[in-house]
Amino acid sequence: MQLDSRQLAAFAAVLHEGSFEAAARALHVTPSAVSQRIKALEERLGRVLIRRGSPCAATEAGESLQRHAQQLQVLEAQALAPFGLEAGAAAALPLSIAVNADSLATWFVPALAAVRERHDIAIDLHVEDQDHSSELLRQGRVLAAVSAEPAPVQGCRVAPLGRMRYRAVASPAFMRRHFPRGVDDEALAQAPCNVFNQKDQLQARFLRLLTRRRLQPPQHRIPSTHGFIHAALHGLGWGMNPEDLVAPLLARGDLVELAPGCTLDVPLYWQRWSLEAPVLRTLSEAVAAAARAGLQPPDTPPNAGERR
Amino acid sequence: MQLDSRQLAAFAAVLHEGSFEAAARALHVTPSAVSQRIKALEERLGRVLIRRGSPCAATEAGESLQRHAQQLQVLEAQALAPFGLEAGAAAALPLSIAVNADSLATWFVPALAAVRERHDIAIDLHVEDQDHSSELLRQGRVLAAVSAEPAPVQGCRVAPLGRMRYRAVASPAFMRRHFPRGVDDEALAQAPCNVFNQKDQLQARFLRLLTRRRLQPPQHRIPSTHGFIHAALHGLGWGMNPEDLVAPLLARGDLVELAPGCTLDVPLYWQRWSLEAPVLRTLSEAVAAAARAGLQPPDTPPNAGERR
Repeated sequence: MQLDSRQLAAFAAVLHEGSFEAAARALHVTPSAVSQRIKALEERLGRVLIRRGSPCAATEAGESLQRHAQQLQVLEAQALAPFGLEAGAAAALPLSIAVNADSLATWFVPALAAVRERHDIAIDLHVEDQDHSSELLRQGRVLAAVSAEPAPVQGCRVAPLGRMRYRAVASPAFMRRHFPRGVDDEALAQAPCNVFNQKDQLQARFLRLLTRRRLQPPQHRIPSTHGFIHAALHGLGWGMNPEDLVAPLLARGDLVELAPGCTLDVPLYWQRWSLEAPVLRTLSEAVAAAARAGLQPPDTPPNAGERR
Repeated sequence: MQLDSRQLAAFAAVLHEGSFEAAARALHVTPSAVSQRIKALEERLGRVLIRRGSPCAATEAGESLQRHAQQLQVLEAQALAPFGLEAGAAAALPLSIAVNADSLATWFVPALAAVRERHDIAIDLHVEDQDHSSELLRQGRVLAAVSAEPAPVQGCRVAPLGRMRYRAVASPAFMRRHFPRGVDDEALAQAPCNVFNQKDQLQARFLRLLTRRRLQPPQHRIPSTHGFIHAALHGLGWGMNPEDLVAPLLARGDLVELAPGCTLDVPLYWQRWSLEAPVLRTLSEAVAAAARAGLQPPDTPPNAGERR
């Protein structure tokens, strides 16, 4: 049995664009043509592949097909490159990559520019916690990810990228108000801290490192790298921020460190599908180069970290 | 029939913390106590309220209860304030607010600092497109939102905040490469642009404004306010960026405008539940003040915008 390439392209486009209408525009066909192709594909495979909604999403059965469509595109691009032709079947599909928010706001983007120098391909970034990025790799929604997971996801290769360095910072006014007698256990138990989201354990790790206790101070959730820094600047709470972003603010005295000189490092890894494709190789090399320029070098990490 | 306050607190904590274990830690009880309270509440109401998963989420039946728990907390805080006491039943619940990414990265955070000056409450931000934020208001997951929706969500009041101003920018190298003969229709149809996500229509609006055509250039998706700026700086594509963030980069010549002087404004609105509660009033006043400081003044908007 062979899959129909136009049906597969319609399937991939609906998932990428989120609706049958938008997929039709992207493929330059009518919405009813898209609808017919999806229906034919679903009848052929005997399964519902797309959960109709806003946006449309892959069903569980659809996920394996999504992965196949992504792989097909990468392989076709490779096969057609010597002819100077673009990939056909799933040409609407861009290079989908998951990356954690702090990496995207700091060292990651130059890698994409390097890929674009050599490959004429659109790039589709997913901002995800590293926990979730393994799931996206498995589902076939992304073909590579910046992850905190050192063990390869099934069907993937993994390489260490380096360590993202964090410092605990707050505004001078916040320090005067919440730590008038210095940064002791009692004050740390009361002073509000900022966390990125439910999964962000960095502040808790810092508290354990400093106090050897499991403190539960009040928490604000600020799921935005720069909102997170603003929240420290405006005295909402203290928080762990990427060293590169807060260095100029520390130098100017707009922020101060809770424990000067104390850092937490989060090791990051590059998870990519095991496919021999030039575009994936270029991407992996470019990401490694950007990581060398923007992260602390990797080492044997005692502190496997969970992080945004 | 009256709801048991400890059961309701357990319900709210599981949804906020994402798991029974984390809720137990937050409430200083055992996980089995949390589990028993949730079960008792579900048996009492005859419905499954929480979809067990990672993270746990409200079922459809649970959503209306979530809204009730949020409202209860706000009202209790109001009733107890004269006694100098904190709210009880749902004290684990923070003030949940939805805000679009670009607002959070620019003008919004000072409003939170002003609220914290007067109310001892934790803040829980949800970064959402304005489309989605109406849904979060209805579900009871947030009690206020920065939204592009001018019509009040059911049970909410709405007030105009102002207009967020965007400019189309790219790197000088990108301009030389993709617009060697100037910014004409043909070049605009080919030059890659950055979009924030599936829903981001700003680049398409700019293209229609400039060319009066529906062009479909290649698109990169970069769902991060600062990643979006990096993507322009590193020549990945052109994109519509908040004026405040790109002004210094334009002044330095690191970025240039595609159509100098041409701006797009996105009107933003403040949607909040219709509850007479001091903390909501303080928040609304603080958000209005921050918007006055950080946005263009509102006017009768011909351009209802969809935006990140």
